[in-house]
Amino acid sequence: MINGKTQLFGFIAHPAHHSRSPRMHNLSFQHWGINARYLAFDVAPGNLPAAIAGIRSMGIAGVNLSMPFKQTVVPLLDDLTPRAQRINAVNTIKNDHGRLIGDSTDGAGLFQNLQSRGLNLRGKRVVILGAGGAGKAIIAASLDYRLAQVDVFKRQTTSYPAVATWVTGLAQNTTTPLRLHPYEAVQTMQDLVAQADLIINATSVGMTTAGVPVPTSVLEQLHPGQVVYDVIYQPLETEFLALARQRGCETHNGLGMLIWQGALAFQFWTGKPMPVPAVEADLLASLTNETPATNQRHAM
Amino acid sequence: MINGKTQLFGFIAHPAHHSRSPRMHNLSFQHWGINARYLAFDVAPGNLPAAIAGIRSMGIAGVNLSMPFKQTVVPLLDDLTPRAQRINAVNTIKNDHGRLIGDSTDGAGLFQNLQSRGLNLRGKRVVILGAGGAGKAIIAASLDYRLAQVDVFKRQTTSYPAVATWVTGLAQNTTTPLRLHPYEAVQTMQDLVAQADLIINATSVGMTTAGVPVPTSVLEQLHPGQVVYDVIYQPLETEFLALARQRGCETHNGLGMLIWQGALAFQFWTGKPMPVPAVEADLLASLTNETPATNQRHAM
Repeated sequence: MINGKTQLFGFIAHPAHHSRSPRMHNLSFQHWGINARYLAFDVAPGNLPAAIAGIRSMGIAGVNLSMPFKQTVVPLLDDLTPRAQRINAVNTIKNDHGRLIGDSTDGAGLFQNLQSRGLNLRGKRVVILGAGGAGKAIIAASLDYRLAQVDVFKRQTTSYPAVATWVTGLAQNTTTPLRLHPYEAVQTMQDLVAQADLIINATSVGMTTAGVPVPTSVLEQLHPGQVVYDVIYQPLETEFLALARQRGCETHNGLGMLIWQGALAFQFWTGKPMPVPAVEADLLASLTNETPATNQRHAM
Repeated sequence: MINGKTQLFGFIAHPAHHSRSPRMHNLSFQHWGINARYLAFDVAPGNLPAAIAGIRSMGIAGVNLSMPFKQTVVPLLDDLTPRAQRINAVNTIKNDHGRLIGDSTDGAGLFQNLQSRGLNLRGKRVVILGAGGAGKAIIAASLDYRLAQVDVFKRQTTSYPAVATWVTGLAQNTTTPLRLHPYEAVQTMQDLVAQADLIINATSVGMTTAGVPVPTSVLEQLHPGQVVYDVIYQPLETEFLALARQRGCETHNGLGMLIWQGALAFQFWTGKPMPVPAVEADLLASLTNETPATNQRHAM
């Protein structure tokens, strides 16, 4: 029961009320008997500084952030974890006695999810499709797992040079070979996908639009022994994942990433692990009770 | 169960974590099936503007305030109810689509409590002992109940002239005869208490200190047919109330005021009545489970 000492955690985004994070974290607080609650707050974009001031002044213990605040929040914080520094973006804030520390658990959530399923990441060759918000978080986190190589494909839009500069900067500060390629270099993509141990779709293709994120010639490289991950979780199986499964790959949708980014935030705040199986069962039940029209990608 | 649409209400004070308001309001939300929660926030005095900015930006639906913020919050709000205007103090804020409206339900809580017990206030003669924060709230609210007269006693400290000016201003804008007297005018106090229908102790005498708030010659005026109210609720029966009861008076402690200030806030926020009997039973149970050392006056 809530009393005068109950701590508040929250989710800050715009929009925010669709969020599944309240269910995940409240279930976890309940599991551990922690006197805390987690609510969602829809904050208008211009009001982020006031909301952060509110978090400080009201002693709100921690928050998650999503669109459009993951980058704009950075100058308002006191410190960043290394993986948050690498992408200059934050999805988790811990209020440590008035000091606000930002962390980025999205990308690490994907890798923790795979480790929790028994995958040993060390020495693995990874291909990442897409370098938007989710892609960048995954790229930044990928440097923490002693992978053999990380190859990123990004379309040659106007943001390509900036991403290339960012990737070059990261590559200089890691022992993991990290390279960026144009999405249009199909032969390179074919070769790298054929040799990869883990292929990650971090684009939104397959969520609101039909289709797959790679050409047929790339799809045809998929084979048994490979792991294919799609950050999308609505639908639970995208066309890309279904085709990969048919070609004998082990496949994972974005639900695990959603859960594990929350699990890492929960651990950062409370020092305790999230009860993942219970949270996963609850989330799956809530997803299958919804209309399939509301396709979603990992967005907490 | 909390979800992304759960609304937040809160209590802002310093200190705040002793508050019983979370119990009262959460029990009431539960009673009505309202998807909302109420938590306490300890805000350092200098941080009130940031906390109010947080309430606005995060869409927190409503708050109660207590020491030391009831007066300092006024310039930060968009509008005040008439009874809040009279004392220039606020214990309740409603966030009406971004407009923050301040109300003062402390004094009205006392009178609503008496009405709920079947007392018809119209035409009654009232003596109020003390004109501090609680006293002023009661004085300001007393003008809304068509009382025959209101006589206030206040010690002649340095704040006496300011309170006298304030009472004069109120008296000019009401049809209720309202007068301020020095606490030291014992004969006047004897006469007015003897004739009064309702005597209210709004001082803190009897809470942390032993003793009664009036001289023996005044106590001896108490008689059957009178109602004596003490804003203190810990102990549940002060020495003053016990003596009044022994002299045949109907007595009431401050628990009803505590509950009814909350009930009026709840009604202001939700449009629904608080389930007072259930809240009262819960509060009484929580009070009797505590050590009697923590004597308290009405402070939400």
